[in-house]
Amino acid sequence: MLYQTIDILGTVAFAISGVLVAMEKRLDLFGVLIIAFVTAIGGGTLRDLLIGNTPVGWMQDLTYVITIFISVVFAIIFVNKLKYLRKSLFLFDTIGIGLYTMVGVEKGLAAELLPIMCIFLGTMTACFGGVIRDILCNEIPVIFRKEIYATACILGGASYFLLIQLPIKETYAYIAAILVVIALRLVAVKFDVRLPNIYSSKD
Amino acid sequence: MLYQTIDILGTVAFAISGVLVAMEKRLDLFGVLIIAFVTAIGGGTLRDLLIGNTPVGWMQDLTYVITIFISVVFAIIFVNKLKYLRKSLFLFDTIGIGLYTMVGVEKGLAAELLPIMCIFLGTMTACFGGVIRDILCNEIPVIFRKEIYATACILGGASYFLLIQLPIKETYAYIAAILVVIALRLVAVKFDVRLPNIYSSKD
Amino acid sequence: MLYQTIDILGTVAFAISGVLVAMEKRLDLFGVLIIAFVTAIGGGTLRDLLIGNTPVGWMQDLTYVITIFISVVFAIIFVNKLKYLRKSLFLFDTIGIGLYTMVGVEKGLAAELLPIMCIFLGTMTACFGGVIRDILCNEIPVIFRKEIYATACILGGASYFLLIQLPIKETYAYIAAILVVIALRLVAVKFDVRLPNIYSSKD
Repeated sequence: MLYQTIDILGTVAFAISGVLVAMEKRLDLFGVLIIAFVTAIGGGTLRDLLIGNTPVGWMQDLTYVITIFISVVFAIIFVNKLKYLRKSLFLFDTIGIGLYTMVGVEKGLAAELLPIMCIFLGTMTACFGGVIRDILCNEIPVIFRKEIYATACILGGASYFLLIQLPIKETYAYIAAILVVIALRLVAVKFDVRLPNIYSSKD
Repeated sequence: MLYQTIDILGTVAFAISGVLVAMEKRLDLFGVLIIAFVTAIGGGTLRDLLIGNTPVGWMQDLTYVITIFISVVFAIIFVNKLKYLRKSLFLFDTIGIGLYTMVGVEKGLAAELLPIMCIFLGTMTACFGGVIRDILCNEIPVIFRKEIYATACILGGASYFLLIQLPIKETYAYIAAILVVIALRLVAVKFDVRLPNIYSSKD
Repeated sequence: MLYQTIDILGTVAFAISGVLVAMEKRLDLFGVLIIAFVTAIGGGTLRDLLIGNTPVGWMQDLTYVITIFISVVFAIIFVNKLKYLRKSLFLFDTIGIGLYTMVGVEKGLAAELLPIMCIFLGTMTACFGGVIRDILCNEIPVIFRKEIYATACILGGASYFLLIQLPIKETYAYIAAILVVIALRLVAVKFDVRLPNIYSSKD
């Protein structure tokens, strides 16, 4: 129940972030819908494709489509009010990437992949919806340029594989890993921690 | 026979639209070929990937490759004359998206997906070749910005699922749905109907 | 042994080319890593997806991930020295596309595809990592604009299917085809041979 609530809140946050980017680009209604959709389900879709999990997840469960659709309608109607929701959206988004990371890790384990590949899949699930959103909007993906985002997912995923070495229940390790992702992202944003840009020597 | 003729005319129209965009971007011969190719088979490829239909369709049937290749050669030779063909190309393209929509819907049904997912697959088949073309050419996809295009596919696909509720033959519903897509697109272009752009409040 | 050495050298060259492009775009560390990764394994990933070879190759073999990671670290540390290595990198890259082309052809044959589809897959394996790299960096893919690159792969792949008609061992045809790709690319660069740009009549 908690799991599903968070999953839906994450989907809502991702969809709304898609709407905001699409509106800034002045896309039409269809464009906005597609971008919201792709932002919310793009990462999981890519993950499912790479491990051969087809038809991909969201095609077999109406929840996502309905959630995204309602989010888009909501976002369009209340776009002027969304700035007051910025903190809530950021929180949903952060909880969302925590959860999505571990969903991806789990799918990798189910496909019997190596831990590092599971961490890849988790990070992809959490981050690549945003990457596809930015490509469709003709931008260099924002997660390649600033903020600790993917890094939080990678470290969180890695923490899971460290924790299951300890004599604790797998469920606890799972939840702890989600919290690691969330905590890292919150701390990074709070203290404005960024990855170094690596400039070429010409500068 | 009619089915195949239309399928080929649609492929021709899509390939030529790819050539025209690629030339505007001053790509070289290989670039033009790839863009033509991707425009013609990109939507169906994405659809096949999402439902796990691999190797994807065009790899198992030479018709598409040959059709596209001849279209590209033709388009390059007669590029100066293509403006006189604009109306024919528009017609092929419009018939093409009608047919491609229903091809996608059919594949979704064969994969036992829900109607709404079938409509997604149909729209994707018809429209995403153009989306990939625009991304490769570093443009925001044109269908996100103007014209009723995807919307015609969505409504046409939906009409199929309404029509099969009635006591009519499935083939008739199939053909009627194709005609709905075509009619909507023609009417939209004729009367310059567009989806609203949804501007953010800053403007 | 030779095969694997070349495979690894090719991966190194592709990963470093990714690092160089990502640095020019001033991406952060995560961005640089992802671009290096995608450049090195993107072509093979797309090929595996299209023929339904999942989980895709690099997920089942740590060699690639480790090779790419070390290449990125190396490239970042020695970025100022890389210009002295330009010739070596060009050579690795050229050998890499020769080898990757034939890897792709082989996978196509294993999937019982037609020769022309195998040539497609080979060219895709060799070239599409670079295409995805350029899309992620918001550039029109360089291979669509200049240099004989994909063309060398296509002709090399085609030469394989011509050679196996002759009464020679398959292994020899395989190696000869790799050499054809390499030779064509070297000659093209040496004599600055390019594909014609096909301008539209407006110019």
